[in-house]
Amino acid sequence: MFFASDNSGPVHPQVLRALTEANTGYAMGYGADTQMDNLRQQLREVFEAPDAAVYLVGTGTAANALALATLTQPYQTIFCSAHAHIHEDECNAPEFYSGGAKLTLVPGGDKMAVQALRSSILGEETRGVHGPQRGPVAISQVTERGLVYSLEELRALCGVAAEYDLPVHLDGARFANALVSLGCSPAEMSWKAGVDVVSFGGTKNGCMGVEAVIFFDPKHAWEFELRRKRGAHLFSKNRYLAAQMLGYLQDGLWLETARKANENCAYLAEGLRQAGAEFQHSPDANMIFAALPRACHQRALAAGACYHLWDGELEGPQDEQVTARFVCDWAIGRDQIDQFLMLL
Amino acid sequence: MFFASDNSGPVHPQVLRALTEANTGYAMGYGADTQMDNLRQQLREVFEAPDAAVYLVGTGTAANALALATLTQPYQTIFCSAHAHIHEDECNAPEFYSGGAKLTLVPGGDKMAVQALRSSILGEETRGVHGPQRGPVAISQVTERGLVYSLEELRALCGVAAEYDLPVHLDGARFANALVSLGCSPAEMSWKAGVDVVSFGGTKNGCMGVEAVIFFDPKHAWEFELRRKRGAHLFSKNRYLAAQMLGYLQDGLWLETARKANENCAYLAEGLRQAGAEFQHSPDANMIFAALPRACHQRALAAGACYHLWDGELEGPQDEQVTARFVCDWAIGRDQIDQFLMLL
Amino acid sequence: MFFASDNSGPVHPQVLRALTEANTGYAMGYGADTQMDNLRQQLREVFEAPDAAVYLVGTGTAANALALATLTQPYQTIFCSAHAHIHEDECNAPEFYSGGAKLTLVPGGDKMAVQALRSSILGEETRGVHGPQRGPVAISQVTERGLVYSLEELRALCGVAAEYDLPVHLDGARFANALVSLGCSPAEMSWKAGVDVVSFGGTKNGCMGVEAVIFFDPKHAWEFELRRKRGAHLFSKNRYLAAQMLGYLQDGLWLETARKANENCAYLAEGLRQAGAEFQHSPDANMIFAALPRACHQRALAAGACYHLWDGELEGPQDEQVTARFVCDWAIGRDQIDQFLMLL
Amino acid sequence: MFFASDNSGPVHPQVLRALTEANTGYAMGYGADTQMDNLRQQLREVFEAPDAAVYLVGTGTAANALALATLTQPYQTIFCSAHAHIHEDECNAPEFYSGGAKLTLVPGGDKMAVQALRSSILGEETRGVHGPQRGPVAISQVTERGLVYSLEELRALCGVAAEYDLPVHLDGARFANALVSLGCSPAEMSWKAGVDVVSFGGTKNGCMGVEAVIFFDPKHAWEFELRRKRGAHLFSKNRYLAAQMLGYLQDGLWLETARKANENCAYLAEGLRQAGAEFQHSPDANMIFAALPRACHQRALAAGACYHLWDGELEGPQDEQVTARFVCDWAIGRDQIDQFLMLL
Repeated sequence: MFFASDNSGPVHPQVLRALTEANTGYAMGYGADTQMDNLRQQLREVFEAPDAAVYLVGTGTAANALALATLTQPYQTIFCSAHAHIHEDECNAPEFYSGGAKLTLVPGGDKMAVQALRSSILGEETRGVHGPQRGPVAISQVTERGLVYSLEELRALCGVAAEYDLPVHLDGARFANALVSLGCSPAEMSWKAGVDVVSFGGTKNGCMGVEAVIFFDPKHAWEFELRRKRGAHLFSKNRYLAAQMLGYLQDGLWLETARKANENCAYLAEGLRQAGAEFQHSPDANMIFAALPRACHQRALAAGACYHLWDGELEGPQDEQVTARFVCDWAIGRDQIDQFLMLL
Repeated sequence: MFFASDNSGPVHPQVLRALTEANTGYAMGYGADTQMDNLRQQLREVFEAPDAAVYLVGTGTAANALALATLTQPYQTIFCSAHAHIHEDECNAPEFYSGGAKLTLVPGGDKMAVQALRSSILGEETRGVHGPQRGPVAISQVTERGLVYSLEELRALCGVAAEYDLPVHLDGARFANALVSLGCSPAEMSWKAGVDVVSFGGTKNGCMGVEAVIFFDPKHAWEFELRRKRGAHLFSKNRYLAAQMLGYLQDGLWLETARKANENCAYLAEGLRQAGAEFQHSPDANMIFAALPRACHQRALAAGACYHLWDGELEGPQDEQVTARFVCDWAIGRDQIDQFLMLL
Repeated sequence: MFFASDNSGPVHPQVLRALTEANTGYAMGYGADTQMDNLRQQLREVFEAPDAAVYLVGTGTAANALALATLTQPYQTIFCSAHAHIHEDECNAPEFYSGGAKLTLVPGGDKMAVQALRSSILGEETRGVHGPQRGPVAISQVTERGLVYSLEELRALCGVAAEYDLPVHLDGARFANALVSLGCSPAEMSWKAGVDVVSFGGTKNGCMGVEAVIFFDPKHAWEFELRRKRGAHLFSKNRYLAAQMLGYLQDGLWLETARKANENCAYLAEGLRQAGAEFQHSPDANMIFAALPRACHQRALAAGACYHLWDGELEGPQDEQVTARFVCDWAIGRDQIDQFLMLL
Repeated sequence: MFFASDNSGPVHPQVLRALTEANTGYAMGYGADTQMDNLRQQLREVFEAPDAAVYLVGTGTAANALALATLTQPYQTIFCSAHAHIHEDECNAPEFYSGGAKLTLVPGGDKMAVQALRSSILGEETRGVHGPQRGPVAISQVTERGLVYSLEELRALCGVAAEYDLPVHLDGARFANALVSLGCSPAEMSWKAGVDVVSFGGTKNGCMGVEAVIFFDPKHAWEFELRRKRGAHLFSKNRYLAAQMLGYLQDGLWLETARKANENCAYLAEGLRQAGAEFQHSPDANMIFAALPRACHQRALAAGACYHLWDGELEGPQDEQVTARFVCDWAIGRDQIDQFLMLL
C-alpha cells in the first residue's frame, strides 16, 4: 500500500536486465560508449529530432538545474509556477547552477495560465538595469499537483515565451505519464509545441536513476557538457545510465509502465471517490490529492499504508477533512489498492 | 588489453547481485532506506568511527567537490598537488561548489612534500584581507600519478595542516588500492592520521557508480546534506547506491578487487620492465607511467591495446621514448596482459 | 522641480567641505585611516553600541548584499517584502553575493505584517532537505513605498524572527528619514528593537556615495571584511568615504537634512492634496505616491518637472488618474515645490 | 616620506575642483548624467575608439573583476602572471565574479613571456571536458613589480591570445604611468596592440576613487551594465565619478601626474643606487624594489618613513640585505625624498 511517491518502487525487470546485459567487457568512459550512441539515436527517433543533443544524468534535479543554467544568465529570472519542483523541492539548485538567477513565481496555482505568464513577463524588465532580466519559461508536465497541460495549453504558453524571445524548458520527470494521458507524440508534447529543452525522466517510471536532457537545437551542446562535468554529473561509467534508458525504451516499456501507473491511479481515484473523498482536481496522470476524514487516514496509516498528508496533521478532530497526496507507480498491484480502499 | 582507466571495466558480479537483490518492494527515498542504515553502520565499523556521518553520491567529483565545499569558505584557498584530480580533472567543480574559492598548487610534483606544503601555507595570508585565506588541505591517496603516501607521510602532511588549524580532505577514489598497498587499517589511513573527511571510492574498484563521503566529526552533517541536495546529488532511489556499496564491502570484496588490481599492475610492470620500459616511479598501486619506444606503442595500439600516451604523439621518430599511462583494474585477465606484453 | 529621486541632488556643502578638509597629506589605505577610527567611534556612540563593527561601502546595494551574504547560507531563503529594494532593484545582487540563496516574498504589500511573516517562515522548512532553509528577515525602513514602521511594528517583526532564531537585517538607505519621522533614537530603531545589522544610508541624504554597515554583534566582522574585499567594495582611499560620513554626522547634519526632506515632502503632499490628488498612503517620510489626472502630469512634465509615473503611460485619456512617485530631498526649495504645484 | 603606495596620497586639487563644480543642481542618476556623456566622449577620443563602451566603477578590483567576468565563462581559466593583482590581491574576486573560473598562473616571473604564455595555453584543454577551457589573457601594465611591457611585448602577448582566439584584458591601474614611460598613445598601448578591454585607473594617479572600464568592441556593453549593477558597483550619483575623471583628463593632468610620479621614482632610485641599494629591476614607472641593509630600514622606518619590507622582517642581522617596495605618487615632494635618502 505504497502511495508515497513513484520514486520508491522497484526497478522494472527489463531495465535491470538491460543493466546486467551491459555488464560485459570494457567500454570507454564518460559517454563515449556504444550504448550511449545507440540511445542517442533512439531518443532522436522517439522525438523525431535528428539533430537533438542528448545527455544523461543521475537525478531529476540535475537534469533541470543543468538545463536551466545553460539557458539562463545569472542576471535573469526564470518564470515558473509557484509549485514548480525547481522552486519548492530543489533546495536552491537552480539558483546555484545559474550563478544566482532568480525565480519569478507566476501567480495562480499549479498550472501556469497564459495570461498570468504574460503578466509576469511584463512585470519584469520594467526597471532597466535595476531589476532582473527576463529569462526562460519553465513548465512542468506532469505538474507538481498531478495535472497535465493539454497540447493547446502547452502551445499557448510557449507562444507567450516566443513573443518575448524566451527559451522554454520542460521538466518531464513524469514525461511518459503525461504523454499517455494526452495520447500524443513526444514531438507534439515538446518541440512541436515550442519547447527548447526537455528533462526526460526515467527514474520515476521504472529506471534506477537516470534522466535524459534533450536539446532540440544543439547549439548549447558543448556548454552543457562543460556544465555537466563542472557540476559533477558526468558519470565515468555512463554505459550503465545508457543501458537503463535503453531498457526503458525497448518495446515501448516506458509507455507501458506509464499507462499502468496512470491506470492504477485512476482505479485508486475511483475507489476513493466511492469512499467519499473530495478531489482538488480530477486525476490527469498518476498523482491525486484527495481529502478524507482524519479517521480514515489514521486507520489507513496505522494499517501500514504509506502516503503523505498534505495540509494537516495526523492528530485532530476525527471527522475533519484532511487532504493527502497519493502517487501510483507501475508496480503497485490492484490487490494493494483494494486492500487500501478496504481500510477506508 | 584495456589499460586506459579503472573506470571502464565491468561491475563486479557480487555488486550486481546486490543490486538485483535490493530490487524488491518499496523503500523510502532519499537515503531513508534500510540498506543505507545498514551501510552506514558497516562503514562506521570499517573505519572504527562510530560517530561518522556517511553519505553517498554517484561520482567521485561530486564526493570531492561537496566535501571540500563543506570545509571551505569562498574567500579561502585549498592546498593541493598541482596534479590533483580536483585541479586537473574536474572542470572547476571545486571552484563552483565552494562559491569561488581558489586552489593553491603546492609545488614539487605529484606527492605533496611536508616542506612544500608548509611553504605554500605560509605564502598565503601574508596580505591580510587582500589575498585569499588559508583553507583545507586536499590529499589524494592513491595520487594521480599512481603513488601511495606512507602513513608517516600522511601523518606529517596532516600535522602541518593541524599546525595551522586547517581541515584535511582525502580524495580516496582509489582508497582500497592504497590501503592494500600499505597493509594498514582504514582508520590508520584516515582519521588516525589526521584526516577529517574522506571520499571513499567504489566506482573504480568494482561498483557501478557510487562513492561515499565520510565525515569523522559529524558537525557538518546537515550542511553537507543541504549542499548535496542543492548540488542535485541526492538520489531518490538511494537504496541502489547503498546496495552497490554493501555488495562491495561484503566479505571484503573491496579489498580483494583492489589487491587483484594492484597485482595485475605489478605483473604488467614487471613485464614492461623486462621489455625495457623506463618508469617514472615504482608502481605503488594499480597505475604506472612507463616510457617505451614509439614503435612499441604503434604496434600495441594498432593491435587493439587501449591506453593513453601521456607526453607525446603517436606519430614521430620510431625509437623515441614516449611515456604512457597504464591502469589495471581487478577484471583484467593475465592473458590480456601477456598478450599485450607479447606485442611489445 | 526635481522629484524623481533623492539620489540626484547635490552633495551637502558640509559634506563636501569635510571631503576637502580630509584632502591633506598621506593616509593609510583600506580603512586604516584615522578618519575611519574617528567615524567608527562616532557611529558607535550614535547607536549606543560600543562593540559594533562598522564598515563603509560606496553603494546601498553593496551594503545590503554584503550584509545579507554574511548572514545567509546559500541553501537558505531571505524573508522580505515583495517590494523590497533587494528584490526589485538590485538585479539579483543578494542572490549573487549569497552564492545563490532565494528570496521569499512575504505577501501582503509594502510593509510586512507580523502574521504574514510568520506564515512565510512556517511555509519554509516543511520539506526537510528538499526546500530552502530559513534565513534572515530583511526589513526596509523607510520602505520602498515610503512607509515607516513604528517601533512596535519593528519589534514585533524582529520578535517573529527571534522566535525562529533568524537574524534581522535593516535596509536603512533612508534610515535618517525614518528616524526623524518616528522621533526615536537610532538604538531604539535598530538593536533595541531586535535588528542585528543595519545598512545606514548616507548617499540619499546629503552624501556623495557612502553607506555604513553596522553589525551590533561583531562576531561576523572579519568575514564581512573578506566578503567586502572579494566583492571589490574595499576602497583604497577609504578616508574619503569616512570623511563624507563624518561631515554628515557633524552637528547633527544628517538629522537636519532628513527633517528638511520630510518637511518638503509633507509640504508637497499638502499642496497635492489641495490640488485633488489621491494618496496610496499618508506620507511618512520623504516619498509619496499620488494619483492625479493625466492632464496634470502632461502639463507638469512638459514644463520641466521631473518625476516617475508609476502605474501608467504619459499618453492616454486626459482625465484618467495616473499615480506618480514623488521623492523630496533636503535640497529642493519651497519655490520649486510651489512652482510645481502651480502647474497642476 | 610616504612610499607605501600610490593610493594613499591626496586627491589632486584639479580633481577636487571638478567635484566641487559638479556639485550644483540635480542630475539623473546611475550614469544618465551629462558629465558621463561628456566623459564617454572624451575617453573615446583619448583612445581613438569612437565605438568604445565606457563605464565607471569605484575600485580597481571592481574594474578588473567585472571586465574579466564579462569575458570569462565559469568553466574557463584566465591566464595571468603569478604576481598579477587579480591573483594575489583581490581575495578571489575574479573567481567570485566569474562564477568560479580558474586562474592559470603563467610561470616565469612578473612579466609574462610569450613562450610561457603559449605553453600555458597549450597546457589547458588537453583533457577535453575534464579540465577547464581556455579563457582570457589578463595582462597588467604597469606590472605588480613595477615593470612596463614594451609595445612589442604587448603585441606579442596579444598575438598569442589571438592565435587561440582568446580575448585580452589589460589591468591599467597604472595605465598613465606606463603610457608616459613608453611615450606612446593610449590606442597603441591598448586596442592597436590587441587589447579588448582596459581597466583605466584614476585612483592611484590623482583621483579619489574612480576607474573606467573600456570595451573597444561594445558587443558586451549591456551584459557589463547588468553585471555591474548585480555586483553593486553602479553608483546612483555617478556624476561624481564622472566629474573626477573629467578633472583628471582636463589639460592632460593625468599624464602630468603620471610623469611626475615616474620622475619622483627615478629620482628616488638614483638616490638609492648611490646609497648602495641593489635593484631587482631597473625602474620603469613609479615603483621599485630595492635591497638595503636592514640597519638602513630600521633607521628610516624609525624616523617616520613609510613603506613595505618585501622579503624580510624588521628584526634580524643589521647588515643583511632586505628588499623593500617603494612607490612614488605625483604628490611626494623632492624634499621628502631627499630627507629619506639622508636617513640612509
